[in-house]
Amino acid sequence: MIHLSCDYTCGAHPQLLDAIVATNGHHTEGYGEDTFCQEAQNAIKTFFDTPNADIHFLVGGTQTNRVVIDTLLRPHQGVVCATCGHINVHESGAIEAGGHKVLALTDNEGKITAEAIDKCFHDHFTDVNYEHMVQPGMVYISQPTEYGTLYSLKELKAIHRICRKYDVPLFIDGARLGYALASEANDVAPTDLPKVCDVFYAGGTKMGALMGEAIVMVSKKWRKDFRYIIKQHGALLAKGRLLGIQFKTLMTDNLYLKIGANGCNTAKQLQQGLKAMGIQFYYNSPTNQIFPILPNTLLDNINKDISYSYWCRYDEDHSVVRFCTSWETTPYEIEQALNIIKQKL
Amino acid sequence: MIHLSCDYTCGAHPQLLDAIVATNGHHTEGYGEDTFCQEAQNAIKTFFDTPNADIHFLVGGTQTNRVVIDTLLRPHQGVVCATCGHINVHESGAIEAGGHKVLALTDNEGKITAEAIDKCFHDHFTDVNYEHMVQPGMVYISQPTEYGTLYSLKELKAIHRICRKYDVPLFIDGARLGYALASEANDVAPTDLPKVCDVFYAGGTKMGALMGEAIVMVSKKWRKDFRYIIKQHGALLAKGRLLGIQFKTLMTDNLYLKIGANGCNTAKQLQQGLKAMGIQFYYNSPTNQIFPILPNTLLDNINKDISYSYWCRYDEDHSVVRFCTSWETTPYEIEQALNIIKQKL
Amino acid sequence: MIHLSCDYTCGAHPQLLDAIVATNGHHTEGYGEDTFCQEAQNAIKTFFDTPNADIHFLVGGTQTNRVVIDTLLRPHQGVVCATCGHINVHESGAIEAGGHKVLALTDNEGKITAEAIDKCFHDHFTDVNYEHMVQPGMVYISQPTEYGTLYSLKELKAIHRICRKYDVPLFIDGARLGYALASEANDVAPTDLPKVCDVFYAGGTKMGALMGEAIVMVSKKWRKDFRYIIKQHGALLAKGRLLGIQFKTLMTDNLYLKIGANGCNTAKQLQQGLKAMGIQFYYNSPTNQIFPILPNTLLDNINKDISYSYWCRYDEDHSVVRFCTSWETTPYEIEQALNIIKQKL
Amino acid sequence: MIHLSCDYTCGAHPQLLDAIVATNGHHTEGYGEDTFCQEAQNAIKTFFDTPNADIHFLVGGTQTNRVVIDTLLRPHQGVVCATCGHINVHESGAIEAGGHKVLALTDNEGKITAEAIDKCFHDHFTDVNYEHMVQPGMVYISQPTEYGTLYSLKELKAIHRICRKYDVPLFIDGARLGYALASEANDVAPTDLPKVCDVFYAGGTKMGALMGEAIVMVSKKWRKDFRYIIKQHGALLAKGRLLGIQFKTLMTDNLYLKIGANGCNTAKQLQQGLKAMGIQFYYNSPTNQIFPILPNTLLDNINKDISYSYWCRYDEDHSVVRFCTSWETTPYEIEQALNIIKQKL
Repeated sequence: MIHLSCDYTCGAHPQLLDAIVATNGHHTEGYGEDTFCQEAQNAIKTFFDTPNADIHFLVGGTQTNRVVIDTLLRPHQGVVCATCGHINVHESGAIEAGGHKVLALTDNEGKITAEAIDKCFHDHFTDVNYEHMVQPGMVYISQPTEYGTLYSLKELKAIHRICRKYDVPLFIDGARLGYALASEANDVAPTDLPKVCDVFYAGGTKMGALMGEAIVMVSKKWRKDFRYIIKQHGALLAKGRLLGIQFKTLMTDNLYLKIGANGCNTAKQLQQGLKAMGIQFYYNSPTNQIFPILPNTLLDNINKDISYSYWCRYDEDHSVVRFCTSWETTPYEIEQALNIIKQKL
Repeated sequence: MIHLSCDYTCGAHPQLLDAIVATNGHHTEGYGEDTFCQEAQNAIKTFFDTPNADIHFLVGGTQTNRVVIDTLLRPHQGVVCATCGHINVHESGAIEAGGHKVLALTDNEGKITAEAIDKCFHDHFTDVNYEHMVQPGMVYISQPTEYGTLYSLKELKAIHRICRKYDVPLFIDGARLGYALASEANDVAPTDLPKVCDVFYAGGTKMGALMGEAIVMVSKKWRKDFRYIIKQHGALLAKGRLLGIQFKTLMTDNLYLKIGANGCNTAKQLQQGLKAMGIQFYYNSPTNQIFPILPNTLLDNINKDISYSYWCRYDEDHSVVRFCTSWETTPYEIEQALNIIKQKL
Repeated sequence: MIHLSCDYTCGAHPQLLDAIVATNGHHTEGYGEDTFCQEAQNAIKTFFDTPNADIHFLVGGTQTNRVVIDTLLRPHQGVVCATCGHINVHESGAIEAGGHKVLALTDNEGKITAEAIDKCFHDHFTDVNYEHMVQPGMVYISQPTEYGTLYSLKELKAIHRICRKYDVPLFIDGARLGYALASEANDVAPTDLPKVCDVFYAGGTKMGALMGEAIVMVSKKWRKDFRYIIKQHGALLAKGRLLGIQFKTLMTDNLYLKIGANGCNTAKQLQQGLKAMGIQFYYNSPTNQIFPILPNTLLDNINKDISYSYWCRYDEDHSVVRFCTSWETTPYEIEQALNIIKQKL
Repeated sequence: MIHLSCDYTCGAHPQLLDAIVATNGHHTEGYGEDTFCQEAQNAIKTFFDTPNADIHFLVGGTQTNRVVIDTLLRPHQGVVCATCGHINVHESGAIEAGGHKVLALTDNEGKITAEAIDKCFHDHFTDVNYEHMVQPGMVYISQPTEYGTLYSLKELKAIHRICRKYDVPLFIDGARLGYALASEANDVAPTDLPKVCDVFYAGGTKMGALMGEAIVMVSKKWRKDFRYIIKQHGALLAKGRLLGIQFKTLMTDNLYLKIGANGCNTAKQLQQGLKAMGIQFYYNSPTNQIFPILPNTLLDNINKDISYSYWCRYDEDHSVVRFCTSWETTPYEIEQALNIIKQKL
């Protein structure tokens, strides 16, 4: 079986697991106050060139989104995001459970524009009944998006400018940030990120960690007492060192970017091979998730050899599926997958 | 000034105020456990022919929607409603503040269909990631809708049938219920209502009361401890008798329907007069709210004589406005309003 | 029947009702944006000599406490109060429903001390696990307390000083504020109040109104967007003028203090009469609630003539009850009540 | 340094880590739907002899308490627990953040009695204002308690009987359950547990796992849609297999009880050694946490050799500290610790 359904179906990247094994006997403080976490925090600050940021490690993405958004919003505020935003679709209502409406804007290939965000805020504050409506209080975007697409630096700057205009924070969900940073199509350097948003997180779970997401709190405004809020959400890992050890390793010798590059390169290889067979794509994605439109008959035939995620119906005879590569996908596997598809097409 | 901006810009219908004055010196239990409330509850049960229902009186509409929805849903569930539903648009996120996502379906003239609701539930439960998404847990509709339109009995039965199919409650927001029941276009008798939903409320605030909404809890399932939840929301009025006295009066001598009829008749008179002048309407509304498309120049000219609500831009030169009649609007006022508009058109 | 069970068992003070009747036909903006509310707000600012405060009118006490506390606290913070505090005991968990722990301190005759509050904050911030505990984020006290007792100006200043020390707001629940201000034992002038707290409310429901509480937001910090939060809680009355009309009347010709004085004077008359019969009191209360310790046999005998609230068991043969006077209690009624008790003792 | 401050200062028990390493390359479904989790669930059902239970794996204790309690309670209900209960003291208000009051009963050595629980429910339902108060809706106890003490089977049965009487669930927090089950003082067999409560969890984090708690949902009542609620809380681990692998290992060859026994035996050895030196204990604890009363001078002297947790001040010259053993504490380390203390006493 060639595994292309998801980027978190196996364990950890061997270097991360080795580091966990090597440090297993060490005794440390709990709850992320250990030296491994400190080292990882320093490495992250260096990587993103944001020496004054606060770094916090959480376990998973939904948890991270909920904790951050609950921290950034006042009770009457909602979070602006794309219709396809993870928080709007796939978190079982976690944001609403925290008391906040998700204000979804129509997306284009997973992205929303500075103009649409500007209009959303402008319309709200000029409505005669504005106090009877949810006030947009922050903006959430994902890089890469849920469709594997990327915001350009210019687009991020424009969105950030609108957020400044209305004095609201911009939060970037980087569950797969490494795949964005390593993509050939990307023009946003790690060191650009802290300059174009207020909070972001660099994902670990989908980048080869057992689990873990690193929140980079750039703005000073919401830092006070953030650990209380993490704890209150049941999100403060007792053996927090596990997250520190893994992120320290990810930040060593550029591993985070290498994992990202492997995901992007193998995805590109697959995409090019499929295009060469005349297959079309639902989104134009330059990262580790690609979305070919495949005949249903083919899908039935490759089931046992290649795992994939069903995405949506395309027409009577075709479906969109997602192939997702990761740190462990090899060029050889992609070659095999292309051969299988070629034979069964 | 002819007041057509809203149905709650003045005080109470004189009969209601008289009843409050007449009983002012009486001493009663607090929190709705007085005999006035009991009499009003009995009168409501008779009016809707639902002897086994539980009746509760709350102060306002947003409060009522929040209390009812918080009671009917489990934490992971959301409420299905029309995009224009009051809970989705004009309650400052009250439902989300209670922890629940509002699952909005595209409306047609303010209404959603049984088919669309069926599809919403079906799609949810057949999605491979259904546990990662908000489960639709109830349906909320308004009668009349936010656009003054009406569900037919057939439509209500069809929606209720879908709710039964998925074992979820149907809640009808009747903030202006009396205008629905009294409309010539209506085919839903008061006694039909408890048969086609699980909970509904008969509004008082917009039907001539100082304040007050009467919740009719038809189903037995959510009754237990409902008063705790009301109290917890700060919605248990200390001098609850005020609500009992008013609803008892509204239920006496068909006053509730008479108020409704006056609103509908004067609205119809206005609508017909405007149509005779060639004016078109944005929605086809048979109740006390009507939505003409008027030239912007006219609006500037009638400002000082007629109050109205701005609704939305229609085109460069026209706007949609809302005229709203009530228990106190007179045929003579409508005649005057029509004359003013005719002159200034 | 002589009614001494509660101060909200009948309707409104006649002057308030007269004002509602007199203005019934006026057309105004909804949601508290009318001129009656403006006039009432100005009168309140004058009464308390706090020209820069923001005034908001809500319907009831639990609602007011919940809205204010939800506004003042961040998610991880709790509210410090007396064990007997209304928010800790009699609001069905409204504060917790808003997400906040009530941090109760042992009270003495309904009051908590600056020292105890200081210790609470000090202990929290010096605990090694402080981030694992609820952070005290504000202080809530009632004036008069739930036991009818009063904080002296010196005590209020001391508590306020501690709040300043820890940079947290002090909120005073004044559901019965008029009875405090009018008490002979009181040394806190209306104009002192805004100087010793950040937010307080002057109650209407228990001071002769049909309903209504006036929030005085002294501090500027939490004012922004407060109306959104009110609306979100279902606490923005559509016909908000009703609250404005009543508070304007309460603030005219010192009516608020006159009502308070009548309650205190008749309570004092009753207390002195009972003491003269040798009856002892559970609390030493100088306002409109008094708490005699009465033989159970007496209670059985006065049941039909005098209404009271059962408070708690004292010993096998005695109970504590509450007698509560109000704007409408007359010296003659108290005389009668004393006679009845004397006969049946 | 001899590490006795806590039972989660190092990594995982070697057998658990070996299992994670051995399975690292396997590809599985995410979110706990893999075969490792199934095997672990089956092993847990066998261990506790509860074939019809539902088993779910979460990451941490606070998270588990919050998810379970949010699931079991209706909005107006609170959870009854001991004053020292973890949910009342050390979870940063997680339960209140979910909307529920913690109703704390005075504990005796960490335990509450069936009688006190019975009184709490009885008092609530017989109070005249019961609807104005938080309804007790479930009972939470810890086994072992936060003070290392144990409920006997008789005590658990009595508490469960009271829960049945009021038709509310009993939830047992077993963060350190293995130390309870393995204690010489314990008379509650693993197979007894599902018979005396409705939900419990067997902790992993403090029993040698990297992280993880296993919820055993014995009652059928709250099972429906439980995974939605887990996901909504951000508590559904993407690589859920990690929890399955660890619990499967803990359940193999009695490892869970062996770890428990090592903790209890070394704690007992330490307790006996200290008692032999004339040292007294604050609680009478038979599990892996012990609470000696030590001279402050001693504490200053052993600081560099033995780690411990400061518990509380005892008197001017003495403090209570906690020594906590675990799977990795050796009899030799305890001997050393005793020697050090003996020398410096």
